[in-house]
Amino acid sequence: MVGPFFSFEGPEGAGKTTIIAMLKDFLTERGWEVVATREPGGIEIAEEIRSIILNPAYIKMDGRTEALLYAAARRQHLVEKIIPAMTSGKIVLCDRFIDSSLAYQGFARGLGMDEILSINQFAIDGYFPSLTFYFDLEPEVGLERIRKSQQREINRLDMESLSFHHKVRQGYLQLAQRFPERIVQIDASKPVDEVLADTAHIILKKLGEQEKSFDHET
Amino acid sequence: MVGPFFSFEGPEGAGKTTIIAMLKDFLTERGWEVVATREPGGIEIAEEIRSIILNPAYIKMDGRTEALLYAAARRQHLVEKIIPAMTSGKIVLCDRFIDSSLAYQGFARGLGMDEILSINQFAIDGYFPSLTFYFDLEPEVGLERIRKSQQREINRLDMESLSFHHKVRQGYLQLAQRFPERIVQIDASKPVDEVLADTAHIILKKLGEQEKSFDHET
Repeated sequence: MVGPFFSFEGPEGAGKTTIIAMLKDFLTERGWEVVATREPGGIEIAEEIRSIILNPAYIKMDGRTEALLYAAARRQHLVEKIIPAMTSGKIVLCDRFIDSSLAYQGFARGLGMDEILSINQFAIDGYFPSLTFYFDLEPEVGLERIRKSQQREINRLDMESLSFHHKVRQGYLQLAQRFPERIVQIDASKPVDEVLADTAHIILKKLGEQEKSFDHET
Repeated sequence: MVGPFFSFEGPEGAGKTTIIAMLKDFLTERGWEVVATREPGGIEIAEEIRSIILNPAYIKMDGRTEALLYAAARRQHLVEKIIPAMTSGKIVLCDRFIDSSLAYQGFARGLGMDEILSINQFAIDGYFPSLTFYFDLEPEVGLERIRKSQQREINRLDMESLSFHHKVRQGYLQLAQRFPERIVQIDASKPVDEVLADTAHIILKKLGEQEKSFDHET
């Protein structure tokens, strides 16, 4: 069977990275092969594209150039890492995917959700995630978590105004309404163990459904 | 006034570079300020994007990744070079633009004309050329010209099979039919002086029209 592909979305500080690591252990213990990844994911071409996006010297970079570069890196990471893992029957857990571009660049930066969707549809060519977990969190709570955490520094995106983070959230909430079959909203203000339980429950249900439909076909 | 923007399309060997240099001199002598360019055109971000596309080590590069990178480099070259030149009233002569991606990647490489158009419409955001000169030439004639020429080496695209070049031509001819208001077909098998005369005549006519409509508005 082709392995399912789950993406995880939401602001920094929502706990995506932690939950993905826990889910990977949880699913591995149950006998699944799991690939946890995030763009550019060690894929050489995608890494080099990302280094252009993040080069602080490139202050003249236009927003549309940036969006096209994100889509290009996404494409290469998908082709070299996600699709091969799926094809060999592994579960893919991906930290951020198409919806980050839609919420951050399309909505919050004002490039247009439909425009960003259009170039990303070209990039992913039908490979939408089986399910996307949107970790919803008040921006104030997310930023507070980051400040308290000793584990990593506050980055450029964190530093941007709180009103920007509110826009990002509004973008994600619109996406959850627009793609209700694909996007599952998770209350990320809950303790980690509860978020893990909520997420794992839905994944197991999805895996069960897939296995059933697979058994049915054979 | 906003300067007009002319692009030049067609296979290698069709004489685009020669004609653009001649047109630049011709128009400069008549008092116009002219910017002749081609992507990535010395624009740092676009140059770095192009270096990823051309890196021979990246044999795993997917066709869609490449198309998105071309669109990204196009965007940045447009924003940093073409638009500022147009805004300051200069005439822009650009060696290859959106139609190269449509003919080569969309049509000849089979990624789909509409798909490539979609990501490039995002990239150019309405900045279609005022006119596009398509230098039409039998692929056999173009390749023969390149082989005879001492001025430059035969490159990877030249080396690809003749059937590919026939497909590219078919793509261009479809584009000329699809955008008859914008694309002017030029018989590039004629001697250089005749091609120059044909092209210059149309440009002068276009400039006259623009000046008239400008006078009319003021």
